[in-house]
Amino acid sequence: MANISKKVSWSGRGDDRGERTPLLNGAEDGKYNRHLSGGGIFNIGRLSTVDLEEITPEEDIVRSRPKEIPHNAKLLSLKYESLDYDNSENQLFLEEERRMSHMGFRCLETRRWVICGLIGFLTGLIACLIDIAVEKLAGYKYSAVKQNIEKFTEFGGLSISLILWAVLNSAFVMVGAIAVAFFEPIAAGSGIPQIKCYLNGVKIPRVVRLKTLAIKVFGVICSVAGGLAVGKEGPMIHSGAVVAAGVSQGRSTSLKKDFKIFEYFRRDTEKRDFVSAGAAAGVSAAFGAPVGGVLFSLEEGASFWNQMLTWRIFFASMISTFTLNFFLSIYHGKGTPLCPCIKYYIFFTKLKYIHRPCLQVMEAMLVAAVTATVSFAMIYFSNDCQPLGQDNTEEYSLQLFCADGEYNSMATAFFNTPERSVRSLFHNPPGSYNPLTLGVFTLAYFVLAVWTYGLTVSAGVFIPSLLIGAAWGRLFGILLSTITSSQSIWADPGKYALIGAAAQLGGIVRMTLSLTVILVEATGSVTYGFPIMLVLITAKIVGDYFIEGLYDVHIKLQSVPFLHWEAPPTSHWLTAREVMSSPVTCFNRVEKVGRIVDVLSNTSTNHNGFPVVPGKICGLILRSQLIVLLKHKVFVERASSRLSHRKLQLKDFRDAYPRFPPIQSIHVSQDERECMMDLTEFMNPTPYTVPQETSLPRVFKLFRALGLRHLVVVDNENGVVGLVTRKDLARYHLGKDGLEELHLAQT
Amino acid sequence: MANISKKVSWSGRGDDRGERTPLLNGAEDGKYNRHLSGGGIFNIGRLSTVDLEEITPEEDIVRSRPKEIPHNAKLLSLKYESLDYDNSENQLFLEEERRMSHMGFRCLETRRWVICGLIGFLTGLIACLIDIAVEKLAGYKYSAVKQNIEKFTEFGGLSISLILWAVLNSAFVMVGAIAVAFFEPIAAGSGIPQIKCYLNGVKIPRVVRLKTLAIKVFGVICSVAGGLAVGKEGPMIHSGAVVAAGVSQGRSTSLKKDFKIFEYFRRDTEKRDFVSAGAAAGVSAAFGAPVGGVLFSLEEGASFWNQMLTWRIFFASMISTFTLNFFLSIYHGKGTPLCPCIKYYIFFTKLKYIHRPCLQVMEAMLVAAVTATVSFAMIYFSNDCQPLGQDNTEEYSLQLFCADGEYNSMATAFFNTPERSVRSLFHNPPGSYNPLTLGVFTLAYFVLAVWTYGLTVSAGVFIPSLLIGAAWGRLFGILLSTITSSQSIWADPGKYALIGAAAQLGGIVRMTLSLTVILVEATGSVTYGFPIMLVLITAKIVGDYFIEGLYDVHIKLQSVPFLHWEAPPTSHWLTAREVMSSPVTCFNRVEKVGRIVDVLSNTSTNHNGFPVVPGKICGLILRSQLIVLLKHKVFVERASSRLSHRKLQLKDFRDAYPRFPPIQSIHVSQDERECMMDLTEFMNPTPYTVPQETSLPRVFKLFRALGLRHLVVVDNENGVVGLVTRKDLARYHLGKDGLEELHLAQT
Repeated sequence: MANISKKVSWSGRGDDRGERTPLLNGAEDGKYNRHLSGGGIFNIGRLSTVDLEEITPEEDIVRSRPKEIPHNAKLLSLKYESLDYDNSENQLFLEEERRMSHMGFRCLETRRWVICGLIGFLTGLIACLIDIAVEKLAGYKYSAVKQNIEKFTEFGGLSISLILWAVLNSAFVMVGAIAVAFFEPIAAGSGIPQIKCYLNGVKIPRVVRLKTLAIKVFGVICSVAGGLAVGKEGPMIHSGAVVAAGVSQGRSTSLKKDFKIFEYFRRDTEKRDFVSAGAAAGVSAAFGAPVGGVLFSLEEGASFWNQMLTWRIFFASMISTFTLNFFLSIYHGKGTPLCPCIKYYIFFTKLKYIHRPCLQVMEAMLVAAVTATVSFAMIYFSNDCQPLGQDNTEEYSLQLFCADGEYNSMATAFFNTPERSVRSLFHNPPGSYNPLTLGVFTLAYFVLAVWTYGLTVSAGVFIPSLLIGAAWGRLFGILLSTITSSQSIWADPGKYALIGAAAQLGGIVRMTLSLTVILVEATGSVTYGFPIMLVLITAKIVGDYFIEGLYDVHIKLQSVPFLHWEAPPTSHWLTAREVMSSPVTCFNRVEKVGRIVDVLSNTSTNHNGFPVVPGKICGLILRSQLIVLLKHKVFVERASSRLSHRKLQLKDFRDAYPRFPPIQSIHVSQDERECMMDLTEFMNPTPYTVPQETSLPRVFKLFRALGLRHLVVVDNENGVVGLVTRKDLARYHLGKDGLEELHLAQT
Repeated sequence: MANISKKVSWSGRGDDRGERTPLLNGAEDGKYNRHLSGGGIFNIGRLSTVDLEEITPEEDIVRSRPKEIPHNAKLLSLKYESLDYDNSENQLFLEEERRMSHMGFRCLETRRWVICGLIGFLTGLIACLIDIAVEKLAGYKYSAVKQNIEKFTEFGGLSISLILWAVLNSAFVMVGAIAVAFFEPIAAGSGIPQIKCYLNGVKIPRVVRLKTLAIKVFGVICSVAGGLAVGKEGPMIHSGAVVAAGVSQGRSTSLKKDFKIFEYFRRDTEKRDFVSAGAAAGVSAAFGAPVGGVLFSLEEGASFWNQMLTWRIFFASMISTFTLNFFLSIYHGKGTPLCPCIKYYIFFTKLKYIHRPCLQVMEAMLVAAVTATVSFAMIYFSNDCQPLGQDNTEEYSLQLFCADGEYNSMATAFFNTPERSVRSLFHNPPGSYNPLTLGVFTLAYFVLAVWTYGLTVSAGVFIPSLLIGAAWGRLFGILLSTITSSQSIWADPGKYALIGAAAQLGGIVRMTLSLTVILVEATGSVTYGFPIMLVLITAKIVGDYFIEGLYDVHIKLQSVPFLHWEAPPTSHWLTAREVMSSPVTCFNRVEKVGRIVDVLSNTSTNHNGFPVVPGKICGLILRSQLIVLLKHKVFVERASSRLSHRKLQLKDFRDAYPRFPPIQSIHVSQDERECMMDLTEFMNPTPYTVPQETSLPRVFKLFRALGLRHLVVVDNENGVVGLVTRKDLARYHLGKDGLEELHLAQT
């Protein structure tokens, strides 16, 4: 057991540890790291089980040099740092807070509300832009293709129509994929896993930048208009989060523009709250579900339910829905139905990741062309003709080889934006679809969606899931009514489509409470709330038996040190002593500049938090704070000589937030290296500490509930013996089958 | 400032403190306590403002002997203890957890789901019982009165009808009031504030007992059937909580029945989770709103959002709604609309509380008779006749002096159970009500509801609020359509009734997210979700400007040490040193039995938690644990002599939970007093600690997020210097106008 605690996983760079073991430099250790992070946390399936089973108590030594098991996805984990969701309550901060009057706090509170209002408004606007752009572009495309098909149906030569369709699709997708692959790869996908991680406390580089937002919006318009099996909801949620991060900081680093407002909110704690509100506003705009949005934020992100925060999030959501509806109704001249969309990921594709941007773009174009071809073939070979209703809701109904006054029902499913298809599956009267059509459609679309997964385009998973679910749900409903021959209320296949859609989506994203509310709000009917809840819970339970939800799998694949709700139940035998990393690099209250620079510059150890100790623990200081101190040359000698020295204020730290310069960019002369730095004023004098005997679940609860980044482990005398970071805890994550942790626990 | 920290408020009995200052014994100090708790936390309005304004920095000494200000409501605070929502992870516990296999934890998890299912089922059944009983009794009553009225309308002598009505009402109410006043006074009211407190961590005596449940159910049936201006929703929520507390413990102490199941869950932490589920199931049964129920539980009670817990709560809610609907549909032969009900509290009545049970019963009867009289007079003097519709929905329509084929519309409002009246206000077509009728009804019912507040009957506040709101909402809608003369969609007064009801209820209970969902789920329509949210937020903001919500006022009146979401914003200048109480009574690892008995028996100091210290802090032990140890005579001497000694197990603590015997009931002989007790195995070896310099908001966050009861304050050397308890933190509560804390902060 003791040996396990001397863990060396989660190797050097970007790690929050206080100290690295020297082991970590060199190629061989690199392999080892990769192996352990594979075996420790982010393994899936057979691979890890095998290598963990090899570890018996007698093999503790052997275990530190296991054979290398290549695992691409594991290498990524090193780049993630944590966010500081625990305020550093140093003297500067306390002084500022104490100076502030009650009115000052009121004013701050008002500003928070204003920011949330702005977030809601801007998110609504962006959602509106996406909606309108997608509708326009898809409209042009379908009109062009429809005219072409109608022209060639009579005279033959439909292959030209197919080519036109495929080329149009590929062109749209190409533009979108180029933007994403070459300019901002983080904008690929739905962005929901990234937002989840951010709210959990993991810093995902560039995830909340303005550039990401621009590429994301552009990319999702292209990919949805390009007819991929994707939706636009995830990107809307991501957009909301970016808007929130931008607005709340009152400046854009990308644009080099500082509005000098909202400076108080320039720290991780405050920013996180706003990002929650942004994500909620995004959900709200995407589905027209303000309550669902709040629940999404809380279910995915929050660890501590705060009533005032909840209200602000709610406010942002409401403004967002309102803005979207307002502008859309101006645009359409009437109210518009609210719709959902996002891109489909199926995880195994991710394992053979294409890394070169050119290839990524070509793959995306290929998928777009294949999607068009498959759709076309399906429509062409299906002979499921349905009479046109009086209240013809199909905007792009294709007659093809059907008789006059009839239309091809397969075309309704394929020749349409996904959300329209979902709506017609929900609402069209019984008999609108042939069971065979639905069956073939389900299969084809499922395969397409699986392939589309992992493309380098901005897109989401909600709508394709809903579409697949709606199709097989409706199929199920038709078959059921055939069997029972009943013509009662049970015979409306649209209801089964709704339930199927809920089941499919629930099985993929595994949300329960928030998804119920989102679906109820999106469909506008409470009647089906109860069955929806039932299938969602069932889908969750059945799904969890086999594998985790899509977002969690995605997070695992990227080896993010994600903290779940609770420590693994069987981890009580572990204590802080075994979990912590030690020894820890500590600084003295008054420390030599040279030593600080050396420690920060040491590339093999990239610490982010340092206990401050003259013997006993008396504070904790962060790398980012030290960097600011060095940059401003806050040295004791200078203070006494009064040379060009002004007192450092909290403002200086806020100005540097969040992109603190690297230590290499700060020049410290040889003379300055001999100076001393007094950390007293800047360190957090009351870091949370635990004794060495504290059990892992207890440490975990403290860490999770308070959103900590560093937890100092002390001995009886209050001396520092170790430091627990997020990664030390995430390491003991228990898979759903309990294997990983169970094996470790038994050694 | 230092003087303030030597606070002596929250006097001795029932206090969680580690140590009392000797000051606290004697009459004069009693006055002082009362004053300080008045001036400190639970003051409202003028009183406290005045006495706090007198305190200037120079008056620190004067302040400790202020003149007595009598305030009844303050005296109650002394009786509340806290609950232990932080696990005591002592050796026994850790050993048990470590022995348990992964399967064991799975099994526990399954049991939790089973319990939640049971909770949902039983809560649904109880709600069903209440619904059916109320309907039956009210049905008999109204039929009898209606026949009587019809008989006497023709021949004159309607006063006999009035008397019949008043007598019937009084009789019902008398029976209910007797049960509550004489057998279980805690069953009075809605029970929601009590549940809020319980979930917050305050032990309200007898609030989750079986007897309370029985009286509550009986009482609410009587008071609703007795025609009081009350509803039955609050009692349903309370019932759910009691059911949960009972089922999860697998035994009833009242019935002296132990099923020997679910023993693992016999501690505060686990019990709280189930009580949350029970409350949610209650809301779900009361309003048919499972999602709303979950949100209610989370909004009111939870501090830490745990996904698994949320799912279990959701499950319980769903089962509850399902059970209720299932049995009601069997009973009615069809689906039944879901309804809301609870009793009306207006706080100022509470100030002149009637304490003698007989008087309480008579007051309740008087109110019932007056309610009947007023209703009768209103019906009698109104001449608002409306034609009977074809689809006549009024079950007890009164013709009175109206022409044939018409009915008296005032009677629809008064001669009906409140939820029926609400429904007709929502759904009846325009023109069903005369504006004057509505205006007079609103006024009369408001006055009645205010008077009814504070009666010793089980009842809730939801339905009366909805009724009043619906009445003036409809009135507003009628007036608006008269002014604008429009006959568009805006002219349906039923919609205004719904919005008015939401506004009225929101302004009274100040819930936002959960109330929105509850109302949307209860009305079955998402269409009005957005306007409902808007009025709820508006009501909340406007209401908060004047006074806190009803439940919070109620909690304040009972001087409960309730912890809000955050520490007051202006409290950064306070540190743990000032907040904590000191010195603290500590025990040694191996302590003399005599000393323990003496400390526990000392009636002037009623501590509940004791740091264990040979010099440094090395653990924390609870009063309840010590009592069990004393009862089982776990003395070092006995262990060595092997006399009738078996090793104490966790089971022994669980068996004693939650009604630990008082120290007086445990006989310790003079010889035994000389024995020693080894606490090592039983104490929590890793209590959370903070350094003295920690700011109040930081202490508060730790306390609230982890649900602590005791937080040990240590010095640099890890020596115990003080103990922070819930009451030390609640003391610094900031009123909405910031006055209380502001004054303290400025001294």
